Amino acid sequence: MNEKTKLLETFPNPNPERDYTIIHTAPEFTSVCPKTGHPDFATIILEYIPEELCVELKSYKYYLQSFRNDGIYFEAVTNKILDDLVGVLKPRYMKLTAEFNTRGGISSIIDVEYEKEIEL
Amino acid sequence: MNEKTKLLETFPNPNPERDYTIIHTAPEFTSVCPKTGHPDFATIILEYIPEELCVELKSYKYYLQSFRNDGIYFEAVTNKILDDLVGVLKPRYMKLTAEFNTRGGISSIIDVEYEKEIEL
Amino acid sequence: MNEKTKLLETFPNPNPERDYTIIHTAPEFTSVCPKTGHPDFATIILEYIPEELCVELKSYKYYLQSFRNDGIYFEAVTNKILDDLVGVLKPRYMKLTAEFNTRGGISSIIDVEYEKEIEL
Amino acid sequence: MNEKTKLLETFPNPNPERDYTIIHTAPEFTSVCPKTGHPDFATIILEYIPEELCVELKSYKYYLQSFRNDGIYFEAVTNKILDDLVGVLKPRYMKLTAEFNTRGGISSIIDVEYEKEIEL
Amino acid sequence: MNEKTKLLETFPNPNPERDYTIIHTAPEFTSVCPKTGHPDFATIILEYIPEELCVELKSYKYYLQSFRNDGIYFEAVTNKILDDLVGVLKPRYMKLTAEFNTRGGISSIIDVEYEKEIEL
Amino acid sequence: MNEKTKLLETFPNPNPERDYTIIHTAPEFTSVCPKTGHPDFATIILEYIPEELCVELKSYKYYLQSFRNDGIYFEAVTNKILDDLVGVLKPRYMKLTAEFNTRGGISSIIDVEYEKEIEL
Amino acid sequence: MNEKTKLLETFPNPNPERDYTIIHTAPEFTSVCPKTGHPDFATIILEYIPEELCVELKSYKYYLQSFRNDGIYFEAVTNKILDDLVGVLKPRYMKLTAEFNTRGGISSIIDVEYEKEIEL
Amino acid sequence: MNEKTKLLETFPNPNPERDYTIIHTAPEFTSVCPKTGHPDFATIILEYIPEELCVELKSYKYYLQSFRNDGIYFEAVTNKILDDLVGVLKPRYMKLTAEFNTRGGISSIIDVEYEKEIEL
Amino acid sequence: MNEKTKLLETFPNPNPERDYTIIHTAPEFTSVCPKTGHPDFATIILEYIPEELCVELKSYKYYLQSFRNDGIYFEAVTNKILDDLVGVLKPRYMKLTAEFNTRGGISSIIDVEYEKEIEL
Amino acid sequence: MNEKTKLLETFPNPNPERDYTIIHTAPEFTSVCPKTGHPDFATIILEYIPEELCVELKSYKYYLQSFRNDGIYFEAVTNKILDDLVGVLKPRYMKLTAEFNTRGGISSIIDVEYEKEIEL
Repeated sequence: MNEKTKLLETFPNPNPERDYTIIHTAPEFTSVCPKTGHPDFATIILEYIPEELCVELKSYKYYLQSFRNDGIYFEAVTNKILDDLVGVLKPRYMKLTAEFNTRGGISSIIDVEYEKEIEL
Repeated sequence: MNEKTKLLETFPNPNPERDYTIIHTAPEFTSVCPKTGHPDFATIILEYIPEELCVELKSYKYYLQSFRNDGIYFEAVTNKILDDLVGVLKPRYMKLTAEFNTRGGISSIIDVEYEKEIEL
Repeated sequence: MNEKTKLLETFPNPNPERDYTIIHTAPEFTSVCPKTGHPDFATIILEYIPEELCVELKSYKYYLQSFRNDGIYFEAVTNKILDDLVGVLKPRYMKLTAEFNTRGGISSIIDVEYEKEIEL
Repeated sequence: MNEKTKLLETFPNPNPERDYTIIHTAPEFTSVCPKTGHPDFATIILEYIPEELCVELKSYKYYLQSFRNDGIYFEAVTNKILDDLVGVLKPRYMKLTAEFNTRGGISSIIDVEYEKEIEL
Repeated sequence: MNEKTKLLETFPNPNPERDYTIIHTAPEFTSVCPKTGHPDFATIILEYIPEELCVELKSYKYYLQSFRNDGIYFEAVTNKILDDLVGVLKPRYMKLTAEFNTRGGISSIIDVEYEKEIEL
Repeated sequence: MNEKTKLLETFPNPNPERDYTIIHTAPEFTSVCPKTGHPDFATIILEYIPEELCVELKSYKYYLQSFRNDGIYFEAVTNKILDDLVGVLKPRYMKLTAEFNTRGGISSIIDVEYEKEIEL
Repeated sequence: MNEKTKLLETFPNPNPERDYTIIHTAPEFTSVCPKTGHPDFATIILEYIPEELCVELKSYKYYLQSFRNDGIYFEAVTNKILDDLVGVLKPRYMKLTAEFNTRGGISSIIDVEYEKEIEL
Repeated sequence: MNEKTKLLETFPNPNPERDYTIIHTAPEFTSVCPKTGHPDFATIILEYIPEELCVELKSYKYYLQSFRNDGIYFEAVTNKILDDLVGVLKPRYMKLTAEFNTRGGISSIIDVEYEKEIEL
Repeated sequence: MNEKTKLLETFPNPNPERDYTIIHTAPEFTSVCPKTGHPDFATIILEYIPEELCVELKSYKYYLQSFRNDGIYFEAVTNKILDDLVGVLKPRYMKLTAEFNTRGGISSIIDVEYEKEIEL
Repeated sequence: MNEKTKLLETFPNPNPERDYTIIHTAPEFTSVCPKTGHPDFATIILEYIPEELCVELKSYKYYLQSFRNDGIYFEAVTNKILDDLVGVLKPRYMKLTAEFNTRGGISSIIDVEYEKEIEL
């Protein structure tokens, strides 16, 4: 468990007997480009099927805010957020989509998935 | 049968010999956050394939209004509305989608499904 | 053949050797609620794969207008329009979608399908 | 000063030497129809030029929430919110626009203005 | 007072000391073309500054519904609705905009205004 | 009176004692470029305040269709339609806006106005 | 080969070893209703996987323009364009979608497909 | 007359006795940043009231294309296009709006006007 | 001149003899709420008529980025950006509009203007 | 390796053990029509699942800019960009979609796909 994942709090899934989907859309994510030092902006869309645990919304907001002054690349930060959330929530399924604002006239989307069955 | 489901009235499905889909979209759902006491707002989208019974639209509106001053979490209220409607209508299929307004800069969607075949 | 279906005229499918799709969208459907006497408004979307016959567009408009002062429920009118058109056109496939305007803050969609293969 | 206006907090206008405009848009206003008891929903748009005082945003949110279970008509509530805010802030100019959701197939907008010069 | 205006009910303007604007948008107006007998559809936008009286919303809906099977031209019906409402409400200002659906590939808007000062 | 204006039929303005506005939007106008012979497409927006006469909608449609195979430039056709309608209707005010589709990557709008006072 | 297909020019597919999709959207198609003589307007969407030949864009425009004064029904013209293009291009796959403007308050879409495998 | 304005061709205003407006919107303008050498992209909106001359559309397209590989700043190019067109057309009024795509997360609009009266 | 305004670079207005408008829209502004420590997000729209100087776009971006970790209120930051830019550019006219994202369900716009004539 | 592909730089995929998707949307692509010499404009959408390498965003921008003054057809340029990127990145999957602006009233989309498995 790293510094950032300590920020994530959970609560018990109220209906673990059923597969259902939770989607949280956070349009105010910002980090810093490690190469240029300029800020990057993205919308982070988290979609998951909970097993035992759900992520507490306020703690998830603080977790995302903790990247504000970190220097990290698009591909790396998207994979890291998925890995952190999978590590804490151990969900049945999770998808993390990061839609980055235009840089040099080009906008980018990174889309990472996790499925429990594949891991076993 | 709980207090709320007593509000739900039904009428006989006029074409039970055929599978067809009914979708009701209610953009004026509001309940209260049990933690902060602040109001939450959502659009509730109900989609189902009726078996013997259809839900009467006005009674469904009163049922949804009955949550106005209840303190209940996003995940719990979405599962509860599905369970209440499945209990009363006993449909062939039902999906309940709740799209909650932004809280702390993050909007949320909860999506719960029921299929008769899975239950047997 | 009932009073309404007599309004429906047809013409021979110019390309019966090929499966292809015809969609007619009619946003000006109105009937009357049998309970309250108030008018209901809907967009009727007809999609079908013709066999021997296509529906003549003007006669289809008159057919839809004939419901103007009829008292009939959402679910019943959608199933009836499908049944009437299937009876007259005997298509390979047909879908009827009725999107009803908001009533009591709730909008409704009814979606009914017919496939020739299922009937045999 | 009534019960509701006690909820409103203010802070000193940081630039009183200049006329400038502040607009707060609150899409989650809800009150109750005094006739039918059913909930009403509106977006409240407040636009004003401050004199000595600005309204504190969180206290304004609590003020709007205090109408949640009040029975009050569209025209009356819009005029009351303007009067309450004018009484507390004593602005150079204020406009209050309330956009109410569809009721019986009809949506409504109420638009009320106050100008200091007119009052003198 | 004609048959239709008897449908219109009023209530006292709660703030007659102040000029303010009320807008009611009714997208479900329908009448019949006196030439062809086919239905016409329009959105009716009523904007007014009340003097002593406001129009009661439900009675205004019934008034609009009373045109459902009347044969009347675009220009005539728009002027008539304005005249009826001015006669009953005696407002300081009123504008009636009727946006008619496409007929023969052409959509039409009729826009009629009344100001008390002009009449005197 | 030229060949085209003979197509235009009128009916008496039902409310000549009042200034009011009529807008007809016709998105299916097409003529031919006199230089290249290729078809041009435009939306024609007619806005006018009638004096004694209103234009009959169906005849106006036929009038616009009569340009279908005429070779005529953007600026000329827009001015001609205004002149023809002013000649027949003798309105208090008229504006003709023609929005032409993209040609060579450039779309064009021509906007011509007539006011009775200016003419006297 | 009929008169119209002689207008269609082709060029060799630069990458025949690979399946890929070409979509041309032409929003300015117009023909004439054979019954009423009034113009019809449509957007023609051509999607295909080329085999040996691609359609030259300018010649395809002239081909579509050649229908300008032809009297032909919705269903027939859509099937004819597909047949003409299949005859000239002999593609691996082709879909022709024609979206016709509103007539009598009803808009229509005709959707025709061709697949080489089915033909063999 | 510079090299670029030689590209601009004109034709006589068919209705010089009347003030009317012509708007040409060209979304495919591109030039090069003189500092970085990277391409800039803009939509150029030309609005004018002609005196004796109108700009020929094809020649205007060639004129705009002539900037393709020129190094020139946003503010300078917008003023230059206005000056070139005023010099050639000598219009009664002209406005040139250039909407530049996002650079470094910031989009820019330059808006320049000319009026004959001001010049005298 | 404070620390931040040192970041702003200028270049000579290429057309000072003419009044014209420059608009820069920066949707990626972020600062920190001084009360809660949470990040705020806004779109900053700068509109001005230059006198002798224009703001260099890249330096303006760096200037806006310098607020990233500053704790400052909505009203104060909007007035400060206007004052800083007026101090450096000494424009004929300037307007600064800051559109802040939703906080507690309420979005805010602050709109500040400066005109040279008023100052003298 | 041709002149253009030398412009493309790569960096190691930070998560090669997992299949995930990267999408870069570049709306500012421009080349020249080899037949007419006029510029073409397109939005280039690159979607891929990386194997060992990711494309560096700035170098990809320079690569796309290198087509600015090349004469090349729609179908050819789309296939070439895919081939160049597949050659350099050797991805698990790649799709290249080019959406070209309207030419002669017709817009075009070219859609090319590559899958590693098919190649073996």
